[in-house]
Amino acid sequence: MESVKVLGLNASPRKYGNTYKLLEVALETASIYGAETKLIHIYDYDIKPCEGCLSDEQLACRPPCINNDDSWALMKEVLGSDALIIATPVFWYGPSGHLKNLIDKLTIFENMIFVDGKSWVEGKVAGFIAVGAEAGAVMTIAYLMSVFNSFGYLIPPWALAYYQGMDDALKSREAVMDSANVGKIVVEVAKLLRNNNSLWKWYEPNILEILKGKNVLERIANKVENLRKETSSKRAETVKKLLQTKPDDYKL
Amino acid sequence: MESVKVLGLNASPRKYGNTYKLLEVALETASIYGAETKLIHIYDYDIKPCEGCLSDEQLACRPPCINNDDSWALMKEVLGSDALIIATPVFWYGPSGHLKNLIDKLTIFENMIFVDGKSWVEGKVAGFIAVGAEAGAVMTIAYLMSVFNSFGYLIPPWALAYYQGMDDALKSREAVMDSANVGKIVVEVAKLLRNNNSLWKWYEPNILEILKGKNVLERIANKVENLRKETSSKRAETVKKLLQTKPDDYKL
Amino acid sequence: MESVKVLGLNASPRKYGNTYKLLEVALETASIYGAETKLIHIYDYDIKPCEGCLSDEQLACRPPCINNDDSWALMKEVLGSDALIIATPVFWYGPSGHLKNLIDKLTIFENMIFVDGKSWVEGKVAGFIAVGAEAGAVMTIAYLMSVFNSFGYLIPPWALAYYQGMDDALKSREAVMDSANVGKIVVEVAKLLRNNNSLWKWYEPNILEILKGKNVLERIANKVENLRKETSSKRAETVKKLLQTKPDDYKL
Amino acid sequence: MESVKVLGLNASPRKYGNTYKLLEVALETASIYGAETKLIHIYDYDIKPCEGCLSDEQLACRPPCINNDDSWALMKEVLGSDALIIATPVFWYGPSGHLKNLIDKLTIFENMIFVDGKSWVEGKVAGFIAVGAEAGAVMTIAYLMSVFNSFGYLIPPWALAYYQGMDDALKSREAVMDSANVGKIVVEVAKLLRNNNSLWKWYEPNILEILKGKNVLERIANKVENLRKETSSKRAETVKKLLQTKPDDYKL
Repeated sequence: MESVKVLGLNASPRKYGNTYKLLEVALETASIYGAETKLIHIYDYDIKPCEGCLSDEQLACRPPCINNDDSWALMKEVLGSDALIIATPVFWYGPSGHLKNLIDKLTIFENMIFVDGKSWVEGKVAGFIAVGAEAGAVMTIAYLMSVFNSFGYLIPPWALAYYQGMDDALKSREAVMDSANVGKIVVEVAKLLRNNNSLWKWYEPNILEILKGKNVLERIANKVENLRKETSSKRAETVKKLLQTKPDDYKL
Repeated sequence: MESVKVLGLNASPRKYGNTYKLLEVALETASIYGAETKLIHIYDYDIKPCEGCLSDEQLACRPPCINNDDSWALMKEVLGSDALIIATPVFWYGPSGHLKNLIDKLTIFENMIFVDGKSWVEGKVAGFIAVGAEAGAVMTIAYLMSVFNSFGYLIPPWALAYYQGMDDALKSREAVMDSANVGKIVVEVAKLLRNNNSLWKWYEPNILEILKGKNVLERIANKVENLRKETSSKRAETVKKLLQTKPDDYKL
Repeated sequence: MESVKVLGLNASPRKYGNTYKLLEVALETASIYGAETKLIHIYDYDIKPCEGCLSDEQLACRPPCINNDDSWALMKEVLGSDALIIATPVFWYGPSGHLKNLIDKLTIFENMIFVDGKSWVEGKVAGFIAVGAEAGAVMTIAYLMSVFNSFGYLIPPWALAYYQGMDDALKSREAVMDSANVGKIVVEVAKLLRNNNSLWKWYEPNILEILKGKNVLERIANKVENLRKETSSKRAETVKKLLQTKPDDYKL
Repeated sequence: MESVKVLGLNASPRKYGNTYKLLEVALETASIYGAETKLIHIYDYDIKPCEGCLSDEQLACRPPCINNDDSWALMKEVLGSDALIIATPVFWYGPSGHLKNLIDKLTIFENMIFVDGKSWVEGKVAGFIAVGAEAGAVMTIAYLMSVFNSFGYLIPPWALAYYQGMDDALKSREAVMDSANVGKIVVEVAKLLRNNNSLWKWYEPNILEILKGKNVLERIANKVENLRKETSSKRAETVKKLLQTKPDDYKL
């Protein structure tokens, strides 16, 4: 069977910095665990800022993007990979602006929900590495997780690694171990998904029909009604009592 | 003139830990700059979780809170202070749960907008200190800033300090300097506000009348119309062109 | 084969509110897709705030927790489930303080890495629902994702649903669809993991040995050196030029 | 006396959209309250991504930036203003990538701490507006607050406004009121600061000398020692008891 493809994105302008190093740790490990890997320095690509066509017309946000830049070349790489490992420097508690511009462009794949019935990156796998001289790594990673999950990416256990400091990140036992594990785990999950093809349709757009067939919403509405009855008289009493207190009595 | 009152809240269960130490640095400095200071270990207070009365009846969330606990005693301290310095351990990238429970209770003061016409903590000043063995300090502080600003607190320049590590925070030159400056700056801003009493009504609830008197919204709507005309034909063309592309041509 | 067990945690004080409703939607759907489900109102449990024993002694944070409360009863439920669906009201852009207290307690399972060699919740699955009258739902969910992933939880595609508003959430087509899909997808991923038991050891603590055997770090250090040579002369030139500019010339 | 200068930055690609509208509401109100205002569409400026010179040499990050683009023209506008009102579309729970690129560039002013002894934007005032079709506005604003405060900006009470939806934001009573108040309050605080010039040196780099002169750190170390004695025997006992429990007894 074909290997899973892991794409590593280096979102740092510095090709030889700590961000790059930890990304290489993750990719080399991914390779040990059987993946075909590729590393891209996104600063080698011209990415113009998103023009927000979506807000004029939902269906207009589609490949290959209106921007006359390298976005589509980069997006094609994302599309052709089973898993992404995104390594970013922490620029003011967030990803580099260049990576943010790429993220804004990736809307194209998510927006296929409306154009094509399904996000084109649904069920892919993502891991994250953040590196900064100072604080902000976790904030950066929390941000990235929420975004890529909203694109339809699966986030495996321990899908995060970070290094905060100015020394050689390769000397940080914890940063290297965590980055290597991001590589290992991303591959394992990607393999698992590939071997279970049938699951790759995740979001079920017809789920309301299924709920309807089982009267789920009615059933819940009834449960709610009962719970309300059980507790509402006590709460109503509380509210009533509170409404009688005079805020002025509590001013200092 | 009376001194400004700075209340320091230690949100750590450990009274002798790094969180406490940096809070003391801030308060001692505040004192040097002329404030009357007080430090409270919030773990000395029983704070039960918020019952969400607000969601049943907007006006029910009011002093002294329905919870039979020490909340009101603590809230009174907050109300009686001109400025808060909140020092929290970083528990999983956020404030301690005990502090979060207090934050949920402080809704009472913000909700006075509806009950009493004005947030009771509007125009007070807040500074923040976060301390953790590992990452998450900035995420914690960003969270606290957004919340206290939404209560009506002013956040002075450089209102943040943090320490990440397991050593003695008093030995970290940067953490001590930043914490001391939080103390200094919070006092200076609080004094400035006190000396300019007239400004203490910040949010103007009748602002729509003022805008109406000057036809502001109409004027903006006109500007928007003109901008739309200028750019819309170009954008419409772009959208049209995009709508003609076939996503299938770009599938891999 | 035994069903996968999905535990739903309602972190709202209101048992009949929108948070509860959407959690029921997720759990009912999980049930349709073959899970055994259980819903717990966490407000039925007394959860005292974390005492931070960890900071005194890393190995002290272990079951059953020193707090004389209902924490362990609740933690046992978490431990006994294959997947969690956490539904929280948005209290000031974050989870309810009561849920935050539970999160702080769950450190016990993650800390088993040090005590027992492995996080006790590694490889479990988590989905998230946030409900608020106003904004803050995504910030709440991004926070929860970063925390549960750091515990070792896997986050499936589209593992988030939210409702912002004051109407009946069951009437929101989007909130119901998303919540139902959280239930569906969480079950599917949990099944997939159960059927592939061998994968349940995710984080490899001996990964450095594996890297060492393949000279990975040396190889990367060499690549870095080459990249540095390629680009450093150009960057050094830039830096040199910059260092000659006089900031004063640019002051206004 | 000269008016305070308020600069409004529209970070949306759409010049006629909701982001622009609410920014105009804020600026028109600022003008009513006495400010001289200016609105810039940042999409009119070419902003290349930050090259991270700082990481090669701390002192290299200085005006006018190495990028051959419009950054410095834009930065000069920021430098020449007393207050900023930043209005951004919510692109994936954060500011537009174009704004993020500008933020990365503004490091130049903060980095003057090292080059010139003081952040060039210290003590300026900032307010924030975020507009999106869906959720993420508060997360965006919390992010911006933490960044601009770290640059040295003061954040006045209620310095945030947002609109989530697809209708005309000018029809949203709450969004218009909040945006107008951002304009009002930003001006009032900027005036207050201008009238109290002496305060414009906020961060005191020599604060350690001041603490030393008063033996502050020693005093705190002593307090800590006493607090530790008071509580440590109880905590030590707890830890000891915990260390005797056997995790295996609690496995399911």
